[in-house]
Amino acid sequence: MTEQWGNERLSGQITFIAEIDKLKNVLRKTFILDRSRFENTAEHSWQASVMAMLLYEHANEPGLDLNRIIRMLLLHDLVEIDAGDTFAYDTQGYEDKAERELAAANRLFGMLPEDQKDEWMRLWREFEDGETREAKYAAAIDRLHPVINNYYTGGYSWLKNGIVRSQVLKRLAVVETVSDTLWQFAKDILQRSVEQGILLDDPIKGE
Amino acid sequence: MTEQWGNERLSGQITFIAEIDKLKNVLRKTFILDRSRFENTAEHSWQASVMAMLLYEHANEPGLDLNRIIRMLLLHDLVEIDAGDTFAYDTQGYEDKAERELAAANRLFGMLPEDQKDEWMRLWREFEDGETREAKYAAAIDRLHPVINNYYTGGYSWLKNGIVRSQVLKRLAVVETVSDTLWQFAKDILQRSVEQGILLDDPIKGE
Repeated sequence: MTEQWGNERLSGQITFIAEIDKLKNVLRKTFILDRSRFENTAEHSWQASVMAMLLYEHANEPGLDLNRIIRMLLLHDLVEIDAGDTFAYDTQGYEDKAERELAAANRLFGMLPEDQKDEWMRLWREFEDGETREAKYAAAIDRLHPVINNYYTGGYSWLKNGIVRSQVLKRLAVVETVSDTLWQFAKDILQRSVEQGILLDDPIKGE
Repeated sequence: MTEQWGNERLSGQITFIAEIDKLKNVLRKTFILDRSRFENTAEHSWQASVMAMLLYEHANEPGLDLNRIIRMLLLHDLVEIDAGDTFAYDTQGYEDKAERELAAANRLFGMLPEDQKDEWMRLWREFEDGETREAKYAAAIDRLHPVINNYYTGGYSWLKNGIVRSQVLKRLAVVETVSDTLWQFAKDILQRSVEQGILLDDPIKGE
């Protein structure tokens, strides 16, 4: 039962705010930079939002709606409260990821007033569908974040999970569609990682 | 020395992204809702940004710039990387808070390209000065967040630190200037907290 605060709208909103605290307990596969512990998804959502703001100038196309990009990044991983964090390279986990996350979105955004539920679902679906320019830019940032994180933690989750360069490059493909500068950076950081031995190269080069 | 990536601008930005990871190790005085540990400032910055987006409709004045509000909230506490979290009711800590935080802002934002440094300093100062409508709304959200947190953790940091209702109300004064609905909510949640014995009432009522 939802605790009542003022009116129905506010009660749903406050209940939602308390509920999303749980994102702080959803652990990702990456470490924080001092390697003392895993990063959680609330922290990732914050840092990705800051990155979007910081790297906005590198988008090839001018005039992207930064406000919508940041709002997408702030809420895109809320579904992990129910669905958990699916590791980017876990093919099995990806099989039912969409289904699990849709159920989570319905439950979580369902706590909000109807019109707001619709708006948040729309933003979440826009991010998931990845078709608009804003969704692509947001996805590029979302995927660059763990790469930076891996680089600065000595390839922690790459090495632990036996990830090779082509897997990361494939995951980063969306970066190429939004920013020449960030795509060059992505290739550079992977190259440097391979040279430092913190990311495995593919078994046969150029394959 | 800054590691070079592509050009000078990008190198500064990437270095900054790695540096701000440290915000995840700055602990606040509040617990997360399952009471398993202290909340950190990265998590707070995320949740406050989500709250701003969620409760935007309750601002008395229409047309506030939500984009600027969220950008302020995302970066407002970065200075705590150097200056630490100053507890809201720590009068001694507040004596040199401004000075410590300005030095931190100069060091951190100083990693960014000059024009971006200026922009981020401006946003940070706008929040700190608290004079624009957007800064006031952002401050209201920033201060409501730990109140909700305290309520749902049985008044953890209030009781531990012997905080009384009037101290919290004083801290929340800015809420009254931006939203009738949120101000009523603030008074309600403190009243309910006092009734539940998780917030001390003032020694002499009505004083």
